[in-house]
Amino acid sequence: MLEDLNRNLTPLEKLGEFGLIEEIKQQVNVHHSTTVKGIGDDCAVIGSGAEKWVLTSDVLIEGIHFDLSYVPLKHLGYKSVIVNISDVCAMNVVPTHLILNIAISSRFPLEAVQEFYSGVHLACEKYNIELIGGDTSTSEKGFFISGTAMGIGNTNEIVYRSGAGDKDLICVTGDLGAAYAGLQLLEREKRVFIENPNIQPDLSGNDYILERQLKPEARLDMIRKLKSVGITPTSMIDVSDGLASEVLHLCKSSEKGCVIYMHKIPVDIATSVFLEEMKIFPTIGALNGGEDYELLFTVNQRDFEKLQELGDVRIIGYMTDKSMGCKIETEDGRSSDLESSGWNAFAHH
Amino acid sequence: MLEDLNRNLTPLEKLGEFGLIEEIKQQVNVHHSTTVKGIGDDCAVIGSGAEKWVLTSDVLIEGIHFDLSYVPLKHLGYKSVIVNISDVCAMNVVPTHLILNIAISSRFPLEAVQEFYSGVHLACEKYNIELIGGDTSTSEKGFFISGTAMGIGNTNEIVYRSGAGDKDLICVTGDLGAAYAGLQLLEREKRVFIENPNIQPDLSGNDYILERQLKPEARLDMIRKLKSVGITPTSMIDVSDGLASEVLHLCKSSEKGCVIYMHKIPVDIATSVFLEEMKIFPTIGALNGGEDYELLFTVNQRDFEKLQELGDVRIIGYMTDKSMGCKIETEDGRSSDLESSGWNAFAHH
Repeated sequence: MLEDLNRNLTPLEKLGEFGLIEEIKQQVNVHHSTTVKGIGDDCAVIGSGAEKWVLTSDVLIEGIHFDLSYVPLKHLGYKSVIVNISDVCAMNVVPTHLILNIAISSRFPLEAVQEFYSGVHLACEKYNIELIGGDTSTSEKGFFISGTAMGIGNTNEIVYRSGAGDKDLICVTGDLGAAYAGLQLLEREKRVFIENPNIQPDLSGNDYILERQLKPEARLDMIRKLKSVGITPTSMIDVSDGLASEVLHLCKSSEKGCVIYMHKIPVDIATSVFLEEMKIFPTIGALNGGEDYELLFTVNQRDFEKLQELGDVRIIGYMTDKSMGCKIETEDGRSSDLESSGWNAFAHH
Repeated sequence: MLEDLNRNLTPLEKLGEFGLIEEIKQQVNVHHSTTVKGIGDDCAVIGSGAEKWVLTSDVLIEGIHFDLSYVPLKHLGYKSVIVNISDVCAMNVVPTHLILNIAISSRFPLEAVQEFYSGVHLACEKYNIELIGGDTSTSEKGFFISGTAMGIGNTNEIVYRSGAGDKDLICVTGDLGAAYAGLQLLEREKRVFIENPNIQPDLSGNDYILERQLKPEARLDMIRKLKSVGITPTSMIDVSDGLASEVLHLCKSSEKGCVIYMHKIPVDIATSVFLEEMKIFPTIGALNGGEDYELLFTVNQRDFEKLQELGDVRIIGYMTDKSMGCKIETEDGRSSDLESSGWNAFAHH
């Protein structure tokens, strides 16, 4: 059906990843009673009893999600675990198991694969994740990684994107934009190196942003803390595609509007210094950069005091009625529409 | 760690896929009480109650597992579902859910992705599988598919590779080698076409082997029949890498030997005719070809009569004590060691 070149074909980037997922979802005709949540959240949720299995699957592709000219294989293995378990955390569930598929070109020796898996095992031990399977194959070109992570959650503890209420507080853990800054640094030094291979990369003083890019962590600690202070968020998502995109996901799924205070968005000083050096406004880096793997969640205002016990969480705005739209406000009170120019998997190539 | 070119690096094909999986398995240090079976069977098995979740994950890589110059995208979508649910069937469990990740180069228009998913949805409807999620991404080059299929099984019904007993009958569903024959045909016609693009492919009279290659089916029907006649196999595996390789897996996991009768191996007449034309001995095609997606299983001899009720199943040999080794016998009584020269994912490139 691709031979008819007279047909008006649609480039994939026009639809984008979320448009494509929406279209795939429309075509799903089989629905089992054991499915609590199918396509459309950080994880699928399946099971019939009080305990549900929560599952997610993510790919990392060489040349799209990582560049082996500056990403060490051990770090890549570590990150392959993190990106998957972060989505389980975003359901307020402790991840327990991982299936990891790889396809790797035969230009890699066994020692490279061992190095990759040393990072996988390191992350698994740190987060108490059991690797229970995976397919291993060769590829013609490039390194492909596909992980599936899962955990068990009680029905009343699992948090979706869709539960946020009007006036709920919007919270985010840690700080944002650092992984994006780290990526800009690595890309800059790669360009310098390509132009002049005798110049050594200058990465000094940028340990924090490099580590956030090369060795991200999942906020499993926050899932445990939320439980210990007695907060069940009303909605939650992990910040992998930039804050703006994730806030819009929560608003869309919850059928709400929001106000985000630009000056409340947490950006580390090292991130700010570097991004300003690169002529990027730090908050824009936080809004549109990706790979933070922090948690964005909403809580009912009655949990305000408990929030103070959490530590490492900032309130950055609140949910509103859907009719109010999704807004971002500067410190001097100017308001504009919150827009996502985050990651489009099909435009980035 | 790859810069030290003086080190003696090991090519991946030396270890092979099963060697690599064995090595990865050795490094797993986290073990959860909810894990019934981790690495080392067709599926992982997790859960704490009487009902367990059975999960498997498989990749299909362009240029390795499929060639888009002769595989229609709709068939590829269909096959992506089948290869995954076949592994769930191999645990004696009815598959119910699927997560499907794809990474696709932007050379494909939206219409190509829609065509692929039309095959996915067709297989899902036929086998009553709910598509509950998946990551979609672009790739620099090539089409990469990773599926994760799952189902719920009762603890006492789940069948592993490891349960075969001495003197158990070795059975196989359907017939073998047809998908391999279909692949040989497609590859032959591709070579002809490359040499002379004016010659149209000659695929006439080979519908059966083409369909077995391009549109494989999972033997979910046999899982239902086994249950209806009251047989729980003592061990089971699906035939994806060639019969010899799968028999050796059952023997290894069950710590048994075996005798396979070469003349009992079921090969369809269309397969035989084509393979002989290609100067390939049909039984060798069945032993070492792949992608049959039939079920290979063992049953206790007391189930012999029930086996007759199943239909479409052949007894091809029996299990022996481990000390007897794994043997294959010809009709005139000559015996030799059963050896696998099946699919090595790392040698095939």
